[in-house]
Amino acid sequence: MNETATRVLGVLGGMGPLASAQFMLRLTLLTPAERDQDHIPAVLWSDPRVPDRTAARLAGGEDPLPWLVRGLRGLEAAGCGAVAIPCNTAHGWYDAMRAATPLPILHIVDAAAAELRRQGIAGGPVGVMGTAGTLAMRLYQDRLEALGHACLTPDEAEMARLVTPAIAAVKANRVAAAYAPLAEAARALAARGARAVVLGCTEIPLGIAAGPALPFPVVDTIDALARAAIAWARDA
Amino acid sequence: MNETATRVLGVLGGMGPLASAQFMLRLTLLTPAERDQDHIPAVLWSDPRVPDRTAARLAGGEDPLPWLVRGLRGLEAAGCGAVAIPCNTAHGWYDAMRAATPLPILHIVDAAAAELRRQGIAGGPVGVMGTAGTLAMRLYQDRLEALGHACLTPDEAEMARLVTPAIAAVKANRVAAAYAPLAEAARALAARGARAVVLGCTEIPLGIAAGPALPFPVVDTIDALARAAIAWARDA
Repeated sequence: MNETATRVLGVLGGMGPLASAQFMLRLTLLTPAERDQDHIPAVLWSDPRVPDRTAARLAGGEDPLPWLVRGLRGLEAAGCGAVAIPCNTAHGWYDAMRAATPLPILHIVDAAAAELRRQGIAGGPVGVMGTAGTLAMRLYQDRLEALGHACLTPDEAEMARLVTPAIAAVKANRVAAAYAPLAEAARALAARGARAVVLGCTEIPLGIAAGPALPFPVVDTIDALARAAIAWARDA
Repeated sequence: MNETATRVLGVLGGMGPLASAQFMLRLTLLTPAERDQDHIPAVLWSDPRVPDRTAARLAGGEDPLPWLVRGLRGLEAAGCGAVAIPCNTAHGWYDAMRAATPLPILHIVDAAAAELRRQGIAGGPVGVMGTAGTLAMRLYQDRLEALGHACLTPDEAEMARLVTPAIAAVKANRVAAAYAPLAEAARALAARGARAVVLGCTEIPLGIAAGPALPFPVVDTIDALARAAIAWARDA
């Protein structure tokens, strides 16, 4: 058993589980490979029992941090060298998670910002869709505004009528039903001047993929995080 | 942190990694759920470094067993209660793996047989496609013949021209290119009298999904194993 010095990626997932699975799929498909052995070793800790992140932040729900830390311990024990978390809202606990583990954690908003640059969008207004928790915590706004992007977000009525129910639909496996409301919310941001729309909740690209492509650039945060993870694995 | 007595599924994967990711996707989509917390907790140990199973069996290649056992140890340490292995050929080491772990291992051929019954195919000839290793080890033939199914398999020329290169194409992320050769091999088995064709390598359903549906019943062994895993999780 000849062990090479390959880096093993830890994936703290299950939030939701479909997004984690899609992350593993995209991680694989975006990796240049000719055979199994060229792909990136990874351990996915998919724990959908983690309490709802938006409810914790906005409605006094159970704190997800102990669950997140348990997952990090599991990934440490499995020998992982870094962690990717395919859930945007969980990044509201990023600093606390960093303090709890020696493993580096790839930040999904940094990955999204890199993806905007990769698509040639160097500044100007961008739309940001996400959970109510992600938007309220300003996870995207603070980082993207520092990079010269004004952030346009759905208003409360659009969140309540379109975005929040569509995210819930994906978590309940009703993926096709999520397309129309998500596309409507994204189009509204583009109409208000967004040069691109960041799909800043990992359920959103799943819904958006279930229908025709949108006629403006979008940032799929699952793909963006997968690209960041591949770059980390290659940087051995 | 209120831990329920939920069962955690271990998935020994990476063989190939796309098949494991698809297994996680189908596990999620086939689970009745209304929110994240209704889904099945799982840990996917995706180690694509496991030496090629067919090469080990037919060509004196490196033994995969130590790698498989290391993955089992990782899943044990993560607190998993059972193991699913979305790689048919790895089941050639099933008895050795069972001897190496206290965890029950769901058998993918049993899952495929259950799926044949679920589709109403109670007996009669069935086609079996798989790697050269899986077919040479008679993983399917012995179990399905005991259930009253004569097994038709691709001949050596079909394996060399169609099935083996198509499986390699999926492992190299050329999924769409795998459809035509796999569909041709499956059609040949149906023409020889198979009432259904078992896609007995987890790369094969990925390729078959990339084109039009075949006009006869097929058993997707990724879906079959996902259904067996859901039944295990529900049986708490």
